[in-house]
Amino acid sequence: MPPVGGTVGPILPALRAMLGDRLSTGQSVREQHGRGEGVPDLYPPEAVAFPESNEEVAAIARLCCAHRVPIVPFGAGTSLEGHVTALRGGLCISLSRMDRVLEVSPDALDCRVQAGVTRLRLNAELRSHGLFFPVDPGADASIGGMAATRASGTAAVRYGTMRENVLGLTVVTPDGRIVRTGTRARKSATGLDLTRLYVGSEGTLGLITEVQLRLYGLPETVSAAVCQFPGVPAALDATVAILQAGIPMARIEFVNALQMHMCIRYSKLDGMAELPTLFLEFQGSPAAVAEQVEMVQAACEEMGGSGFLWANRPEERSRLWKARHHTYYANLHYLPGKSQMGTDACVPISALAECILETEADVAATGLLAPLVGHVGDGNFHLGILFDANDPEERARAEGLARRTGKRAIRLGGTCSGEHGIGMHKLDLAAEEHGEALSLMWAVKKALDPLGIMNPGKLLKPLD
Amino acid sequence: MPPVGGTVGPILPALRAMLGDRLSTGQSVREQHGRGEGVPDLYPPEAVAFPESNEEVAAIARLCCAHRVPIVPFGAGTSLEGHVTALRGGLCISLSRMDRVLEVSPDALDCRVQAGVTRLRLNAELRSHGLFFPVDPGADASIGGMAATRASGTAAVRYGTMRENVLGLTVVTPDGRIVRTGTRARKSATGLDLTRLYVGSEGTLGLITEVQLRLYGLPETVSAAVCQFPGVPAALDATVAILQAGIPMARIEFVNALQMHMCIRYSKLDGMAELPTLFLEFQGSPAAVAEQVEMVQAACEEMGGSGFLWANRPEERSRLWKARHHTYYANLHYLPGKSQMGTDACVPISALAECILETEADVAATGLLAPLVGHVGDGNFHLGILFDANDPEERARAEGLARRTGKRAIRLGGTCSGEHGIGMHKLDLAAEEHGEALSLMWAVKKALDPLGIMNPGKLLKPLD
Repeated sequence: MPPVGGTVGPILPALRAMLGDRLSTGQSVREQHGRGEGVPDLYPPEAVAFPESNEEVAAIARLCCAHRVPIVPFGAGTSLEGHVTALRGGLCISLSRMDRVLEVSPDALDCRVQAGVTRLRLNAELRSHGLFFPVDPGADASIGGMAATRASGTAAVRYGTMRENVLGLTVVTPDGRIVRTGTRARKSATGLDLTRLYVGSEGTLGLITEVQLRLYGLPETVSAAVCQFPGVPAALDATVAILQAGIPMARIEFVNALQMHMCIRYSKLDGMAELPTLFLEFQGSPAAVAEQVEMVQAACEEMGGSGFLWANRPEERSRLWKARHHTYYANLHYLPGKSQMGTDACVPISALAECILETEADVAATGLLAPLVGHVGDGNFHLGILFDANDPEERARAEGLARRTGKRAIRLGGTCSGEHGIGMHKLDLAAEEHGEALSLMWAVKKALDPLGIMNPGKLLKPLD
Repeated sequence: MPPVGGTVGPILPALRAMLGDRLSTGQSVREQHGRGEGVPDLYPPEAVAFPESNEEVAAIARLCCAHRVPIVPFGAGTSLEGHVTALRGGLCISLSRMDRVLEVSPDALDCRVQAGVTRLRLNAELRSHGLFFPVDPGADASIGGMAATRASGTAAVRYGTMRENVLGLTVVTPDGRIVRTGTRARKSATGLDLTRLYVGSEGTLGLITEVQLRLYGLPETVSAAVCQFPGVPAALDATVAILQAGIPMARIEFVNALQMHMCIRYSKLDGMAELPTLFLEFQGSPAAVAEQVEMVQAACEEMGGSGFLWANRPEERSRLWKARHHTYYANLHYLPGKSQMGTDACVPISALAECILETEADVAATGLLAPLVGHVGDGNFHLGILFDANDPEERARAEGLARRTGKRAIRLGGTCSGEHGIGMHKLDLAAEEHGEALSLMWAVKKALDPLGIMNPGKLLKPLD
């Protein structure tokens, strides 16, 4: 990989001529684009461009390519591992003004959107068609960013991740070509799967400017439930039993005892105990949901689950899921002044109980407070490690806990990141996970970004 | 891409020393490995190797790499587009002796198999665990070959294709490194998706030697049904309605009137009319299946469907599906002495009726007999074009019809191959489908197979 030493200086006049006031070098705009949500360190780009079309993105890329200016693509800035930091300066290309839903087809159950459309905006627009897009990472991320980080979230157990739900892309290559990948067909066996190669590439191979998505009809009935367990193994045994029975759960979320302690205080969950808990959601026809509920309740009770709390009305459901989704705020509220570091282990569900129990013991040994929530239907869980960002020793302890949690997932046959990605923050862990495969990833990277200008310093640890 | 002129001569002594009688240069073995099932032309390899371990495959690859000998991977030989022909000679590496199921985990719902295990063997072994692997291309293909061609089949509407069901791979690179891709976790956001890059790469990037697969619990209840329609649009409108309602169909297969004519004669389907027909399968709990059946029957009747025929007993179901799966034989039996050429168009389901109606009119204009069946839940259908392989004019007419059908799918937003792949036979159509993306595929190909020894002449049309 050739070194990247470019700065935007030489291309600023051309950029300004093309973009006018859609190019910013102001300090505050640069700082707004200098970090995402998970990593506190700030690396501002030298300038921020706000293109409005594929052709503008391509023209900008050609300029950057000719002068070896690093490019950092930027969606909504909600990524968690420092994906959008401008580690080597260069130009941030914000897709925020490419925010149109280009086409919705209820008959084909698909749509085409520009990369800057956010998830909530898209779903608001789809509702009138009786449709929705199910990938739900929590944050109101941009669809382009979700594709670039292979996002998933609470509904992946039923609907899959961005990997399964992106049909095709429009990509601008680092040398400024506009390329379509995939088709609108549900499946294809023609050629190398470029769509899946760009999904999860974190802006290191090119810029995703448009996304073709699979859509789903809004479910007739939605029901939620909560069930509490005497211990972690019981909750996870119930999860395995539910998955083995093939019950098409919409969501199965685990919340550990410490996290319940914090949620009960913050979200006023009266009547719930500080026990390992499953939050469950069912979607389908009334009869299908009723049957699923019955089967799941039986599976939970067999494992010692109790206190089944049903929520059929939207406002009850919303209260339960708000409690689950507000764990981040509940934690920060519990220990004011602390920062929170997330982990993202994902393992085969058969190893999940072991992984979580070892991790809870590890947390206890560190003396840190680190509640745990999990998308357990996928084998994925997060610690929210609370630490003092101004105390180097405590931050190092938090980093150590996070690193050990990632290594544990790898050792158990899993991955150090189920859904947050690598960014600048997990290069070492990912390299350990990939082994020799890292050299193949670098070969692909060099083939598609020979100058190394696309989001340098992210995703792939340099080879020795 | 450097030219490949190597022959196995210089490495034969070393291969023989390594493999003994697991290396064959006999005429009949070479001819058995010189073609698959769909393309009649024979291109035998110079020799066939039968390795038994990753290490042997790697050692063979290193020899071939050092002497630029073309490598053609071979599974069960059931591919349809000439994937396994040795167009430039070289060495065929058969994975048939790597046929062990290495690990089955009912708790994790996954397994690891060697590439040469066939689909039916795997499912026979899984049954005792209460599990199954759902990807069903019809033929008893090898799992490695199914991964290499991104196979799917009748159950993809419910369970997805190999793309969705391969968790990870062991790949031997053309220079003889053994690389693991993916993990056992259900999802991962770490690094470039090499697993999906090798799935569907048709042996052009490396040799798939082991596959980690997702598994599913055997369904409690399976039910099948047949419904007949007054016309193609009615049958496909019913299909769209069923998909929009989110009914989790296990299979939805379309058979056109001409194909029904042939099936009724061949498979003695008493009581059925020569009308466009849907073959349906339901899987799940008894209550879920009963509800799905009711909803589907209502949707079909609303579109004018009639003659609902239910099959709950295994032997009734088996009779129906045998009739569907034996269309190939029904067609050849109808016109003895003819050969059959398959097409593989796949379009958004909203365009499927248009695509099928235009194709039926095209068939009529050619004067050829070409019945049609389709995995319509995926928007995928096949013509079985009957032609005289010894009549160049008739073969050209068949090729023309096949080409126009592929082009029609591309024009309607789809793909020229939903599941059979490109092999040596569809290079032009695939190039038309990919446009500029073909140059990116070539960049990846050159990065991972710089000498161009992996299955040369397949998958990617040379760039101008």
